[in-house]
Amino acid sequence: MRLKSATLLFIATSIICLSFMQGGKKKVIFFGDSITELGVKKGGYIDLLNNRINNNGQTNQFELLGAGIGGNKIYDLYLRLEKDVLNKAPNVVVIWVGVNDVWHKSMMGTGTDYDKFGLFYDAVVQKIQAKGAQVILVTPAVIGERYDQSNPQDGELNLYSNWIRKYAAEKNLALVDCRKLFLDYSAKNNPKQVDKGILTYDRVHLNDAGNQLVADAMWEAIK
Amino acid sequence: MRLKSATLLFIATSIICLSFMQGGKKKVIFFGDSITELGVKKGGYIDLLNNRINNNGQTNQFELLGAGIGGNKIYDLYLRLEKDVLNKAPNVVVIWVGVNDVWHKSMMGTGTDYDKFGLFYDAVVQKIQAKGAQVILVTPAVIGERYDQSNPQDGELNLYSNWIRKYAAEKNLALVDCRKLFLDYSAKNNPKQVDKGILTYDRVHLNDAGNQLVADAMWEAIK
Amino acid sequence: MRLKSATLLFIATSIICLSFMQGGKKKVIFFGDSITELGVKKGGYIDLLNNRINNNGQTNQFELLGAGIGGNKIYDLYLRLEKDVLNKAPNVVVIWVGVNDVWHKSMMGTGTDYDKFGLFYDAVVQKIQAKGAQVILVTPAVIGERYDQSNPQDGELNLYSNWIRKYAAEKNLALVDCRKLFLDYSAKNNPKQVDKGILTYDRVHLNDAGNQLVADAMWEAIK
Amino acid sequence: MRLKSATLLFIATSIICLSFMQGGKKKVIFFGDSITELGVKKGGYIDLLNNRINNNGQTNQFELLGAGIGGNKIYDLYLRLEKDVLNKAPNVVVIWVGVNDVWHKSMMGTGTDYDKFGLFYDAVVQKIQAKGAQVILVTPAVIGERYDQSNPQDGELNLYSNWIRKYAAEKNLALVDCRKLFLDYSAKNNPKQVDKGILTYDRVHLNDAGNQLVADAMWEAIK
Repeated sequence: MRLKSATLLFIATSIICLSFMQGGKKKVIFFGDSITELGVKKGGYIDLLNNRINNNGQTNQFELLGAGIGGNKIYDLYLRLEKDVLNKAPNVVVIWVGVNDVWHKSMMGTGTDYDKFGLFYDAVVQKIQAKGAQVILVTPAVIGERYDQSNPQDGELNLYSNWIRKYAAEKNLALVDCRKLFLDYSAKNNPKQVDKGILTYDRVHLNDAGNQLVADAMWEAIK
Repeated sequence: MRLKSATLLFIATSIICLSFMQGGKKKVIFFGDSITELGVKKGGYIDLLNNRINNNGQTNQFELLGAGIGGNKIYDLYLRLEKDVLNKAPNVVVIWVGVNDVWHKSMMGTGTDYDKFGLFYDAVVQKIQAKGAQVILVTPAVIGERYDQSNPQDGELNLYSNWIRKYAAEKNLALVDCRKLFLDYSAKNNPKQVDKGILTYDRVHLNDAGNQLVADAMWEAIK
Repeated sequence: MRLKSATLLFIATSIICLSFMQGGKKKVIFFGDSITELGVKKGGYIDLLNNRINNNGQTNQFELLGAGIGGNKIYDLYLRLEKDVLNKAPNVVVIWVGVNDVWHKSMMGTGTDYDKFGLFYDAVVQKIQAKGAQVILVTPAVIGERYDQSNPQDGELNLYSNWIRKYAAEKNLALVDCRKLFLDYSAKNNPKQVDKGILTYDRVHLNDAGNQLVADAMWEAIK
Repeated sequence: MRLKSATLLFIATSIICLSFMQGGKKKVIFFGDSITELGVKKGGYIDLLNNRINNNGQTNQFELLGAGIGGNKIYDLYLRLEKDVLNKAPNVVVIWVGVNDVWHKSMMGTGTDYDKFGLFYDAVVQKIQAKGAQVILVTPAVIGERYDQSNPQDGELNLYSNWIRKYAAEKNLALVDCRKLFLDYSAKNNPKQVDKGILTYDRVHLNDAGNQLVADAMWEAIK
């Protein structure tokens, strides 16, 4: 009897210890562009997620890291994947990219070909999965907030988002469909079809409402 | 008395004759880009309109002229307006432009700024109206035939088409809304969301069904 | 006799007065883009020209007006020619444009086609000449200050400048060849092939040395 | 004793045979874009090299493989490096790329950022070297054959070529400077400054003279 109790105690303690050491904190890395780079600032979506985690008393369960760099496209993420993400041994990687792949076509002539977008995206996902981390995909939200499909990059944002949605479905990956969330929100809250000031302050980067919307959606995916 | 009657008769006859000779034929000039350039070829939408006029026995009522040049944008139309249109004293000018204004942005870096598109468009319309001719506006149809707004230029085609619609309404001008017609047709006839082969053979230029759809719509506007 | 003398005196006086009122000041309008818009600010090239005129005691001989608007291309100049230039009855118009016609190709997809550049340029010149004013042409200087032809837009700046040079020669118009001046200056003063900081502060807009170089060259053309 | 001698003879013969079969031929892979894809056709530069090798009686010393695909940019080469090059165990890899990295900026908005060009280029070179193969670099030749630096992409071709030259020097890699060869040839043989027909038939792809010039230069590098 005593032996048995001791054994059970040992096992139980071990489990607790192990869970504390390894699984106690879920390390989530947000991997993306300027939107994510700004996300770690006060009031940014990652900051809001941290506040929520604090308020929930879950600080020992989550560690959130921002890995966003302004102007990044999918192949920038590919090129810095090891250094900025894999070397940090994340449990979850949230990939939010696509705005610059589309936008840089007209802005500087160096957007990403549609087919290359998929090839590099898939390569990034496979490398993360090879390290045993979970991947969460996010569609690019908006470049301009009119919901009537008359923002100049709407066609391409829809095209690239459709690819991400299809890829997520095929690979059975979690998806935060920010593009859909933003368009639905605009349809309800943007009666004058303005192109900024609803969820962004400049057509692309999140204002307070935008950060809150994204934080809420991300929370559902990572909690 | 007799002289007076004869004079009146002569005047009346002259008026009828003159109206028959000069005003009897409505001269319609289709002013546009490669889609209109191809429109005068056998099976093209202008050719189909001529067939219809022939079949209706209305050859003495209409004269249709094509004035389309491949690659033209709104300021190309502006630059050749006198030479190719006004000098021919049309009764009606159908302006169908916009595809290249949008497409050339990504294809060669020389698309038309949104605000300049409006300025030159308005200048073209005013110059035609100053000559006493009627103006019929046409929205750019498609660059890619998917109807889910995922063709790369959909956002801009919608934006520029919205401008034309609004301008037509404000100026009380006839409008053939090809963009709407094409999207509606695709929604009914393109279940697989292919991007060509429905109303175009190459995402932009009209196939037989496209020429027929356009000819029918144009007929309603010019008849 | 007396009457005749009085009449002659009156005529002579009138001519002198008129010439003083009208022709006494040479009105020079600088017509261009942001470089010219900044030219009227303190230390800008037009401001430096005014200082020179003041120091020369020639304030009753020259009136300099800036008509530069940021982002302007040749067809922007065309569109606002009457309002901003011709309505002000200039004696001389200095046309300095071309940087945005080239730059906007890669920056926003709305640069100016090479052939349209020439067509609108010629139209602007002809309209100015039709009003009896003298035209002075200026080549676009630089987008990047390396002199080894490795700035991304060098090929196009050379191409468009060649057009202006050839056109000036054919039409016998005065030319201030800023592109040549800037490249020659860089060859002498830019041993490290830096791409800004020699005559510009940002690869395009003039620093103090740039404003002085331009003011000196403009002076030779307008004095 | 006899047995031993026979064995030694067998081993020696085997070694000679194997070295003849495997190592006797230097396997050279030409890795690039459409210019290289066309290079294997009759009269193409790789075909001319094979003719030369045949005429020299060196067919047992060289094996030339073309691995060019139209439209390829540096990151296309990166993406298909294993499949199309490394898996074939080359002794030498000739990398000729850059035209599309520059050209696609204005042609479809998906050129390669200057800094990414270098990052992917270096990654390709390092992967090839890691397999023990020799690397030969080639600068992009021309997009337009005027030698006065007025072809639209001259600035960028010079910029990207400068990078390749500097990289080759730093890494002590063989370089075939096609850009310099083509410009020098044009300066001597293109008195009218035409933009095609000297070494290319369409401003980019090689005509007979172009293939011969390239074949001669490549031969010096691989022989």
